[in-house]
Amino acid sequence: MSESLQDYLKTEQHRINMYMIGLLEKDKMLPAALSESVLYSMRAGGKRLRPILMQAAFESFGGQGDKVLPAAAALEMVHTYSLIHDDLPAMDDDDYRRGQLTNHKKFGEATAILAGDALLTRSFSIIGQADELRPEEKVFLMSYLSEAAGATGMIAGQALDMEAEGKESLLHELEQIHILKTGKLLTYAIVAGAFLAGAKQETLELMKQFGMYIGLIFQIQDDILDVTGDESVIGKPVGSDEANKKSTYPKLLGLEGAKEQMEKYVDLAHQCLEQAIIKSSRLHELTVYLSRRTS
Amino acid sequence: MSESLQDYLKTEQHRINMYMIGLLEKDKMLPAALSESVLYSMRAGGKRLRPILMQAAFESFGGQGDKVLPAAAALEMVHTYSLIHDDLPAMDDDDYRRGQLTNHKKFGEATAILAGDALLTRSFSIIGQADELRPEEKVFLMSYLSEAAGATGMIAGQALDMEAEGKESLLHELEQIHILKTGKLLTYAIVAGAFLAGAKQETLELMKQFGMYIGLIFQIQDDILDVTGDESVIGKPVGSDEANKKSTYPKLLGLEGAKEQMEKYVDLAHQCLEQAIIKSSRLHELTVYLSRRTS
Repeated sequence: MSESLQDYLKTEQHRINMYMIGLLEKDKMLPAALSESVLYSMRAGGKRLRPILMQAAFESFGGQGDKVLPAAAALEMVHTYSLIHDDLPAMDDDDYRRGQLTNHKKFGEATAILAGDALLTRSFSIIGQADELRPEEKVFLMSYLSEAAGATGMIAGQALDMEAEGKESLLHELEQIHILKTGKLLTYAIVAGAFLAGAKQETLELMKQFGMYIGLIFQIQDDILDVTGDESVIGKPVGSDEANKKSTYPKLLGLEGAKEQMEKYVDLAHQCLEQAIIKSSRLHELTVYLSRRTS
Repeated sequence: MSESLQDYLKTEQHRINMYMIGLLEKDKMLPAALSESVLYSMRAGGKRLRPILMQAAFESFGGQGDKVLPAAAALEMVHTYSLIHDDLPAMDDDDYRRGQLTNHKKFGEATAILAGDALLTRSFSIIGQADELRPEEKVFLMSYLSEAAGATGMIAGQALDMEAEGKESLLHELEQIHILKTGKLLTYAIVAGAFLAGAKQETLELMKQFGMYIGLIFQIQDDILDVTGDESVIGKPVGSDEANKKSTYPKLLGLEGAKEQMEKYVDLAHQCLEQAIIKSSRLHELTVYLSRRTS
């Protein structure tokens, strides 16, 4: 990773964390245990990849200033709620996340369910209350977030993923799951950033495609890391896909085949960016970064 | 109940059901089990009290036509999601709701959690996609719904309610729980209806107060029915508050005291309506109906 990209990631992580956590700390959530549980998961770190992609897409089309922060915070909160609920005993039953106990392990299942609900709910009013956005922009962002996160998007992906557990999936079934479960919110990040910078409809369509490739790249690398990764760097156990009998790219294509497939998507992602006539190299850099990340 | 009110309730129930379920049936939710689970709970009946209050408030300020339907549907979906999650084993652990198996008893916990998440998420895009609303109206409705349903509103009420279980609550603690858990969404119904009919800010404030009283009336009668009600009419077991060691109005004030307290709130609710200079008698009627309902 270039030094400039490393600095960029750090700066943007810091900026989104200050905004998002500052906002939630000011909320008068009740009772104290619920507030703690919400903040526990929001403060748990994480790469803030979705806000960063939104910011980078925004800048790629000439956007300047803090205009994306509310939509970026909303998106990261939706992502965090989905992790809290996915980790529940009835779902993936995970004990650790981002190197610390999962929310329900720390606060109990009832509070974890409500903390997830609270984050999902709050994400919409963060956009609704943003002074820097016009009503039309707010409506676009809130409606699109709802679609990307809902039962025709991310939630569908999680439900299909659970149904697929223990079964042999075909490659196109696996890709459908990832496009829904991971791709929809990543695409939201990209499209929302470009939209807020004033990109036109045909450009937004290209960015939608780019977002889909980014989602697939992210997921293939996730599968690869579950085979080859370092547990202390990833922050969760390695080999869990094997243990959970999950279909993965390495299982369907072999490790080398999975890497080749990812490189194809990297090429396609770069092509989308070129067609969209982006001057900044940031999204190109982030695409490469995602395909080579170690955590 | 007057015949006219009975007809009104039936007509409005039918209208909201047609709209709301028609809309969800058209959604391409995946997988089939998730779609079935969502529709199961939405079709389970229920009084549709919140949509009806919204419609009545709308008419009370001269509103005509179908303008409230999207916000009314969104609200009923948020209400239904909250029931699905509240019924979960980690929360209230209920087996029956509206006279049929609870969602998790029928579809399993994981699907029930996701069905609740899906309904909450979808509620926002229903408002966002409504052609009949202006962007400013959509933003008001979505932001306010998020606040009313979130961790400073309904979710706070549910979390406080769980914390209070098995403890002796004081009357003001009990009222705080009800104002949050039940009152916030009922108030949303009333205020959204008045807002969409063009009511002014000071009128909306009066309707907010009215909504709070309606919430308390609803809850006191709920507590009373848990003591004196007919199980086959209510659709859930009688005496569950006693069994769950819940603080209730009858327990704190005695059965007669609880009824007197409710009548006080009925008077205050009528006063709000009079101050708001409402010509229609519908909200007056609904107030009385709520205080005398048997289910």
